[in-house]
Amino acid sequence: MSATKAIAEDLTATFTGWASTGSLPLKKFSYHPRPLGPQDVEVEITHCGICGSDVHTMTSGWGELSGPCITGHEIVGTVVEAGPESLRKVGELVGIGAIVDACGECKDCKEGFDQLCHKSTFTYNATYHASGAKSYGGYADRVRVNSQYAHKIPSEISAAEAAPLLCAGVTTYTPLKHFGAGPGKRVGVMGIGGLGHLAIQWAAALKADEVVAISTSDNKREEAKKLGATKFVKNEEERKAARHSLDILLLTSNDKNTNWAELIEYVANHGTLVLLALPEIPTIAIPPSSILRRHVSIAGSLIGGWKITQEMLEFAAKTGVRPWIEKMPMSDANAAINHMMEGRPRYRIVMETEAAARLQKH
Amino acid sequence: MSATKAIAEDLTATFTGWASTGSLPLKKFSYHPRPLGPQDVEVEITHCGICGSDVHTMTSGWGELSGPCITGHEIVGTVVEAGPESLRKVGELVGIGAIVDACGECKDCKEGFDQLCHKSTFTYNATYHASGAKSYGGYADRVRVNSQYAHKIPSEISAAEAAPLLCAGVTTYTPLKHFGAGPGKRVGVMGIGGLGHLAIQWAAALKADEVVAISTSDNKREEAKKLGATKFVKNEEERKAARHSLDILLLTSNDKNTNWAELIEYVANHGTLVLLALPEIPTIAIPPSSILRRHVSIAGSLIGGWKITQEMLEFAAKTGVRPWIEKMPMSDANAAINHMMEGRPRYRIVMETEAAARLQKH
Repeated sequence: MSATKAIAEDLTATFTGWASTGSLPLKKFSYHPRPLGPQDVEVEITHCGICGSDVHTMTSGWGELSGPCITGHEIVGTVVEAGPESLRKVGELVGIGAIVDACGECKDCKEGFDQLCHKSTFTYNATYHASGAKSYGGYADRVRVNSQYAHKIPSEISAAEAAPLLCAGVTTYTPLKHFGAGPGKRVGVMGIGGLGHLAIQWAAALKADEVVAISTSDNKREEAKKLGATKFVKNEEERKAARHSLDILLLTSNDKNTNWAELIEYVANHGTLVLLALPEIPTIAIPPSSILRRHVSIAGSLIGGWKITQEMLEFAAKTGVRPWIEKMPMSDANAAINHMMEGRPRYRIVMETEAAARLQKH
Repeated sequence: MSATKAIAEDLTATFTGWASTGSLPLKKFSYHPRPLGPQDVEVEITHCGICGSDVHTMTSGWGELSGPCITGHEIVGTVVEAGPESLRKVGELVGIGAIVDACGECKDCKEGFDQLCHKSTFTYNATYHASGAKSYGGYADRVRVNSQYAHKIPSEISAAEAAPLLCAGVTTYTPLKHFGAGPGKRVGVMGIGGLGHLAIQWAAALKADEVVAISTSDNKREEAKKLGATKFVKNEEERKAARHSLDILLLTSNDKNTNWAELIEYVANHGTLVLLALPEIPTIAIPPSSILRRHVSIAGSLIGGWKITQEMLEFAAKTGVRPWIEKMPMSDANAAINHMMEGRPRYRIVMETEAAARLQKH
């Protein structure tokens, strides 16, 4: 048998980034990228946001790594090479999110949910189905991906601010659109951080009747209002008033300490509690009573497909939704990760490479 | 303060039935019903189905009882008295399901979900909000309820066969309609019993693309097909083939042994697993992975409101959906309960009173 397998590595090229082998600190690591396919682009990275998923992955919280892993899926940079069928041109500023490939032909792909395609490939710590090539993320100098997943960044958005939109942005925008956030709907956001501070802005921009920020931290009260929250829920009285009030409640993170009964109490009859992040535990303990007696649904939403990613970027350009960011040099990636893990940045760290200085505009 | 409280008991009337005080066997018990209000009917009971909820209640599986409880919420009988504003007339055959009151004015009531109204009253083991009267169910000779909740039984349906439709029927019909069962949808039913055997029939009558019966009991294979199932899932090969295939999966019961991971595996991307019954445990251990990675929702559905109950009865009359029943005399209520708990009736026990012999037709 002489199975033909696409070549997985381009030995003529070497990209360098910060990799984990399952624990911290990250270490410098070089790899050969996949060959530049006809639809591919090679991107010189200028910025990469730090997502909670990166931390789950690099610390083996979601399982062991198969080898050195360059995380990062909030990538922005400039196209420096483009295959003959590429949708993007050399010189364009593009953004790459949490997936970089899908079959394009299945029901999910056709309905705009390519992130659920059984052949979808995550931006890092994954393997391309067709070629067997490994995928590497954005804590690096360069990356090669199919141009379908190299989104055009609207000129209104700076390169640094675009980065967190590629994952945190589309992860919060997608479920709000899917579950109909807008006039007549009351939206809640539990957890005001990298995801939550964008979710509040989207819900306000989509003109939801109420945008309720729920937090365990009273010192986010003023910031939540600046972001567009109509209500802030922290103390006992506020929690009581918010009972059974939310048609859509986005839960930006969950873990073994999550109080599911309390969260479900905020959801209105027929409302939906939407999980946006996978915890590091195999099961979650849901009280079934409200699911039955109040028709509350527990749903989940995973990032977003390419089509809604492009829509989200244009919506952000038009409405002024922007992440609040703290820039740090990628050369200090470990310091940035430490800040993320300890400091609860407000609200997203974006690492910047040396190539950022060469950007003409944005 | 002289708070005026409606009178809770009519001392001139005495109804007699089979009551539990928290454990078996049931014992004969008499009570004074609430006064006949202007919109009320008094019903001479001819039939009452035995529902799983009755058993949970009478054995204290859902908590302690506040006093003697006459269960039964699949009630059929003849109107023998009617208030001046009653919607039903003396002599009419009517059916009473699992709720007997709601405010009629809140959002849920207006949208046809009066079973979720915060003032809704269950047919037994509950207290009317306005009067403080206790509610008593159908293991009895008579019952008094608001005529809104005394549904007209279409002439095509026999009195005995109508009984299980009032709870098992509407409990399965409501979520199938709500989640859009019909052409283009693949429906699954886990558990072929009192609820499941009706769910299969509804899904077939609604012309779902697939009606998949999932069972742990191979000897229900032929019966499932007679009920309208297009597929039966029991063995390893069938389970594998059914993976990720169902848009709607109704779960007729669940307990501490429910294999949630396996159930969720049957649900298609974007599909919904619908709980129809409250278990006797405070939380259920849901694996969040498929909720996130495949956008599977966990939803619940509680019985049905008065409007859809009437729609369901008419749909059954038109399409020929009927419960498969075993009749037993209500005078042997404890034997009927034992049969229910041990014998797994096929598929619903309907107790018959002496008044059944006096029915002219049906």
